[in-house]
Amino acid sequence: MRAPEPSALPDDVARALPTLLSPRPSTALLTDRYELTMLQAALASGVAHRHCVFEVFTRRLPPGRRYGVLAGTGRMLESLADFRFGAAELDWLAAQEVVDDRTLGYLADYRFTGDIWGYAEGETFFPGSPVLVVEGTFAESVVLETLVLSILNYDSAVASAASRMTSAAVDRPVMEMGSRRAHEHAAVAAARAAVIAGFVGTSNLEAGRRWGLPTIGTAAHAFTLLHDDEHAAFVAQIAAQGIGTTLLIDTFDVRRGVEAAIAVAGPTLGAVRLDSGDLLSLAQDVRRHLDELGATDTQIVVTSDLDEFAIAALAAAPVDSYGVGTALVTGSGAPTCGMVYKLVSREGADGTMQPVAKASVAKVGVGGRKSAARRLDPTGRAVEEVLVVGPDAAVVEWAEDVDSLRPLHVPLVVGGAVDTRWTGAAGVHLAVERHAASRAELPRGARRLSADDAAIPTVTLRLDT
Amino acid sequence: MRAPEPSALPDDVARALPTLLSPRPSTALLTDRYELTMLQAALASGVAHRHCVFEVFTRRLPPGRRYGVLAGTGRMLESLADFRFGAAELDWLAAQEVVDDRTLGYLADYRFTGDIWGYAEGETFFPGSPVLVVEGTFAESVVLETLVLSILNYDSAVASAASRMTSAAVDRPVMEMGSRRAHEHAAVAAARAAVIAGFVGTSNLEAGRRWGLPTIGTAAHAFTLLHDDEHAAFVAQIAAQGIGTTLLIDTFDVRRGVEAAIAVAGPTLGAVRLDSGDLLSLAQDVRRHLDELGATDTQIVVTSDLDEFAIAALAAAPVDSYGVGTALVTGSGAPTCGMVYKLVSREGADGTMQPVAKASVAKVGVGGRKSAARRLDPTGRAVEEVLVVGPDAAVVEWAEDVDSLRPLHVPLVVGGAVDTRWTGAAGVHLAVERHAASRAELPRGARRLSADDAAIPTVTLRLDT
Repeated sequence: MRAPEPSALPDDVARALPTLLSPRPSTALLTDRYELTMLQAALASGVAHRHCVFEVFTRRLPPGRRYGVLAGTGRMLESLADFRFGAAELDWLAAQEVVDDRTLGYLADYRFTGDIWGYAEGETFFPGSPVLVVEGTFAESVVLETLVLSILNYDSAVASAASRMTSAAVDRPVMEMGSRRAHEHAAVAAARAAVIAGFVGTSNLEAGRRWGLPTIGTAAHAFTLLHDDEHAAFVAQIAAQGIGTTLLIDTFDVRRGVEAAIAVAGPTLGAVRLDSGDLLSLAQDVRRHLDELGATDTQIVVTSDLDEFAIAALAAAPVDSYGVGTALVTGSGAPTCGMVYKLVSREGADGTMQPVAKASVAKVGVGGRKSAARRLDPTGRAVEEVLVVGPDAAVVEWAEDVDSLRPLHVPLVVGGAVDTRWTGAAGVHLAVERHAASRAELPRGARRLSADDAAIPTVTLRLDT
Repeated sequence: MRAPEPSALPDDVARALPTLLSPRPSTALLTDRYELTMLQAALASGVAHRHCVFEVFTRRLPPGRRYGVLAGTGRMLESLADFRFGAAELDWLAAQEVVDDRTLGYLADYRFTGDIWGYAEGETFFPGSPVLVVEGTFAESVVLETLVLSILNYDSAVASAASRMTSAAVDRPVMEMGSRRAHEHAAVAAARAAVIAGFVGTSNLEAGRRWGLPTIGTAAHAFTLLHDDEHAAFVAQIAAQGIGTTLLIDTFDVRRGVEAAIAVAGPTLGAVRLDSGDLLSLAQDVRRHLDELGATDTQIVVTSDLDEFAIAALAAAPVDSYGVGTALVTGSGAPTCGMVYKLVSREGADGTMQPVAKASVAKVGVGGRKSAARRLDPTGRAVEEVLVVGPDAAVVEWAEDVDSLRPLHVPLVVGGAVDTRWTGAAGVHLAVERHAASRAELPRGARRLSADDAAIPTVTLRLDT
């Protein structure tokens, strides 16, 4: 049997072949150019393989916020596997003369072989908390800066806002519906971060597929408008989705919408949704009306531009669940965390590790590797974020030995091998649990929405050798 | 010649095969679940194939903003090609019982066959501007809502902020450096949106690769701290990047940094960068110092948490260019545009097109397909955003026939075929030109940063048959 000659391939198949044969997209160019130009200069000057410790932290919380929530760790570990410079990436870097041949050679074989520790995903954090510690050569560590920060800054901004929303909702479920107000891939990450902070589901299908998150959604105003009248739309939706669905009742007139919904579905309709207007008074009217019609178990879902404050304001309203969009995916006023990735310790010419930090005018750093623990009072309530700085080995061991301290660093990558417990759907489950436990441990009042200082102070201790 | 038996494949190759053979990632699940549940119900009720017109617009500009900038159109068209439900997507939807078999069958063959018009990418917009018009069956159009809005809302938020920054910088170049403060893929889109609004380059390598954008970047504080002293770091950087590079001089002491920079590079050094402190007074000191050392052509780049206001405040400082990060990628206080995707016209039971709109309590819409044009005064200055609503055919033709009106809709997709002029690097170039021309046409004062109303009013005319 002869192989088909290349010309025997249909044109469209031949054109599609390179695409069909390309592997998963590389994450390696999701990187600032200066990471690679620094690498080239360090390779040339002979310091690229100095052992280094980088730390990720934020200098302050957004104004008025009492705590932050770390999210993105699992996604970061998933992306690390795809941080590879393949032929496509190397060819482009060469053609653009971004770096020289020696650097291209280094990148072609790139694989992170170092160690990464971090706060467990879902953990609360405070100013200065070293939420991630990356240890390896300068070369292998510096090139991860952009990708690591992009992921942790966005996901943590969303989780930090989401945690305030689920706090404000107390026992009522909150659902994520913000995909349309965020970059299409940020939306997927936002859904994941929201669930970590206690949301019960998301409208985003890709997030459902990727991490097994529960997905939700029924119909929009367009569906009602598509039909000849509201009644016809409700009949169609009930036929397709069953009696447990949620009918959107505010397309024409809320009172008539309730009547049509119950006329079509009967009093065992799952829920009605309100997406506009004065939700507090509307919810009261709708509840009364539903009860009059015998639909006492039909729930009320509200979804109109909610944030944590609007949710809190509805605490006394007869509302059963909340859908949050814009405010969630934009971090409710704080769309990024301001986390930075700083070199804090590196091997010197004599081979010993030396603390380093920026020293001039502003953004002054604290040099040296840090360990972190949360100090708890005898009732298990958090009282302080304790950072310890000093000789690397001493710092790593320190928190294990002190009563009343809960150590915060867990191993994420060991010798280049990702600990897969933190990735995928299982990683999200762990993060959900960690967040719930960490938030419950904060001082009373930490969950108040009013602007105030960080819920616990950050103190830095210096260990001597 | 015998084909190798499956077992002859090395294990790692066998494991990699499914990945190697998978096509470009589908964008089809970057979608809210309710788009698909609405589709299922509409297929069942027989209205899924009614002809529909959806419009994308924003009800208001962010507080104080005078105009918005449309961006993302090219990216949206690029993503449309990958909006396909392959086996992986269909299997997941089936396993999760998101939709029924009939709907899965529809999605398996899905391909958008309708028409899309829109404002040209880079165009300025105002409240109500119909920046995109999607026409096709309900089924093929509704499922695009989430993807279209995600892209336009984020990219336009960034471009709208970016335009204020390049306005404030007047003739000085502005560079995009915000990747670390945005979701890793949002960062790529942000770089593109920034360039459309006049930025001269980006630090983001992937954005450079994808759309041919100029990339920039030299070194961070970590590079200086990695070396035994600042002098050694500067020697290494000059050796690798040449005398035209930019040296970061604020790691230890700015004055000593300037001295070290010129001592190492000589007076023809390209530039120095300041990333912290009081930039106005520091820039004056550094300029004086550089001039004293004979480095009169060495430029000063500043990059510390700048936004449009900080840029404007540095107008009198001896600064040569700006690097902007956080404020750019987060839309400088307005991280999303609030654009919505609304059904405005649809085929009725009698086969004629009928205007439709939500009518209750709030978020009330204007039904009917709209055409849009900018009315210009005799000097070519914009005076009004004119929307015309009425019978579809009349509206489409209308603006062409009126003097002093510049029609705003261009065809983007015709019968399902994307007009590729608007995609790729060429699309970005067109958008850069469109934005510059559109901004130049706005009334004097439209570029002031102080909070004010929209620069021109939006008026809606109603055409009768």
